[in-house]
Amino acid sequence: MTDTSLPSVPRTPLTLLGTGAMGTALGRAWLAAGHPLTVWNRTPRRTAALTAEGAVAAGSAAEAVAANRLVVACLLDDASVGTALEGAGLAGRDLVNLTTGTPADARARRAWAEERGARFLDGGIMAVPPMIGAPGAFVLYSGDPEVFEEHRDTLAVPAGTEYVGADAGHAALYDVALLSGMYGMFAGITHAFALLDGTDVAPGDFAALLVPWLNAMAGSAHGTAERLVSGDHTSGVVSTLEMQVAGAGTLLRTAAEQGVSAELLVPFLDLMRHRLADGHGEEDISGLVETLRTR
Amino acid sequence: MTDTSLPSVPRTPLTLLGTGAMGTALGRAWLAAGHPLTVWNRTPRRTAALTAEGAVAAGSAAEAVAANRLVVACLLDDASVGTALEGAGLAGRDLVNLTTGTPADARARRAWAEERGARFLDGGIMAVPPMIGAPGAFVLYSGDPEVFEEHRDTLAVPAGTEYVGADAGHAALYDVALLSGMYGMFAGITHAFALLDGTDVAPGDFAALLVPWLNAMAGSAHGTAERLVSGDHTSGVVSTLEMQVAGAGTLLRTAAEQGVSAELLVPFLDLMRHRLADGHGEEDISGLVETLRTR
Repeated sequence: MTDTSLPSVPRTPLTLLGTGAMGTALGRAWLAAGHPLTVWNRTPRRTAALTAEGAVAAGSAAEAVAANRLVVACLLDDASVGTALEGAGLAGRDLVNLTTGTPADARARRAWAEERGARFLDGGIMAVPPMIGAPGAFVLYSGDPEVFEEHRDTLAVPAGTEYVGADAGHAALYDVALLSGMYGMFAGITHAFALLDGTDVAPGDFAALLVPWLNAMAGSAHGTAERLVSGDHTSGVVSTLEMQVAGAGTLLRTAAEQGVSAELLVPFLDLMRHRLADGHGEEDISGLVETLRTR
Repeated sequence: MTDTSLPSVPRTPLTLLGTGAMGTALGRAWLAAGHPLTVWNRTPRRTAALTAEGAVAAGSAAEAVAANRLVVACLLDDASVGTALEGAGLAGRDLVNLTTGTPADARARRAWAEERGARFLDGGIMAVPPMIGAPGAFVLYSGDPEVFEEHRDTLAVPAGTEYVGADAGHAALYDVALLSGMYGMFAGITHAFALLDGTDVAPGDFAALLVPWLNAMAGSAHGTAERLVSGDHTSGVVSTLEMQVAGAGTLLRTAAEQGVSAELLVPFLDLMRHRLADGHGEEDISGLVETLRTR
């Protein structure tokens, strides 16, 4: 028989601060891939799932940081990162911060880390814990490019990696922008299902049309990006803003007929009307980005 | 040489009322497929594109209706259908109404048509004119199932067909629900691009991540449909409402940092908070449909 096992490459040891649902999922993926893992959590008993699989629990965050050069933080919020690392010796450490925060949080945390002698990479996890280790999950990274390059193989263990720039704030900016796009879509989906409630339309039959429809329409974001770059919102427009505002009345009348509050749709329809009133009736709706920017 | 031409099947002749951009696109597809076409438009010169390709222009809507059993209306709005067909002899005709309207408009128009001796099918066109005749375009139909069955081959010429039930209002209901979902998504996309404005993030780089992200997240609508059918919004929830409300603060703080009004996101975040305050923190966001229904 052929020996198909991989050559035994030593895996980078690392420290994980924070073993909530997400931290535990990340830690499991590293342990499964053979990385020696030191863990710390504010509530110590929550490290049990990982120590049972081979992780070493440190008695304090400072001890955990002392154990390895690569330190990954996955804590509640940005303030928790500062609190946890208060007395830790960060000099010579590579801090990879997967804690959720704003772009400004990430930039400030980078400056804070560098003042203490650490290199800094920020990350935004585009997945929920059960997706970690499975295809489709990815983490956006930004900040020190050398940290990303040196550790990319280790970072790629729990989820795909997308490096989006040296500005430490970019991972959070992309992360929040992607989530904001998603919540807009969820608002539309919520309104759509509410319209069907009380009718004999089977939600599953509707979903079977809705999902491919949204997938087809999401592609328009590529065109929006092109128009934002060129600044041209009028060439080759198929559905003009004027036509879309005219059609919006049917959406509102249908919501009223079905007894559904239009609160989730109204702000976008108002934005369209506002842009139309400003004389942009011949534009694609890509022009709305400009109006929203100046509100 | 082999004769690869199709056998000469007589194509159903039909009448088209309304030759705006959409009507013209539909008419072109039928002419190209060999269907004899009679056309009428309130502004007669707008039939020129189709008569140049072989359509016969009728002098009045009544004349156009008299010419063929199958009559397709693609007019400005529901009231225009009533006005155009005021003096027409509808008895024995099959009226397929592709004019945009609400579910109640469609049901009332069916009763109106049937009183006049016509059979009625309503349709909602899920395409813009340049998509007609190309893959991806489809029309939702509802109403008299026999009309759909008898004419489905003819109706399938300009766009795919989706019959969604005998209730004449269902095509409009599906149509508006799909469009409402789309506008929610467009609101999210607009907010997302606004966040990036003034940064050095290239809109095209962001779109390359946004489109697959939205496509992946749209799939959650299948799970929402299942939860709405079962009434169970809590089993197997990965991101609870409570966790999502906690994360929403980062979205709002980032919008503020980037100087972008959160007006497009706030109503959905408010709906989430409202549902959380009602004690549904352990739910999937599918439960929001119930709250929206009762607002």
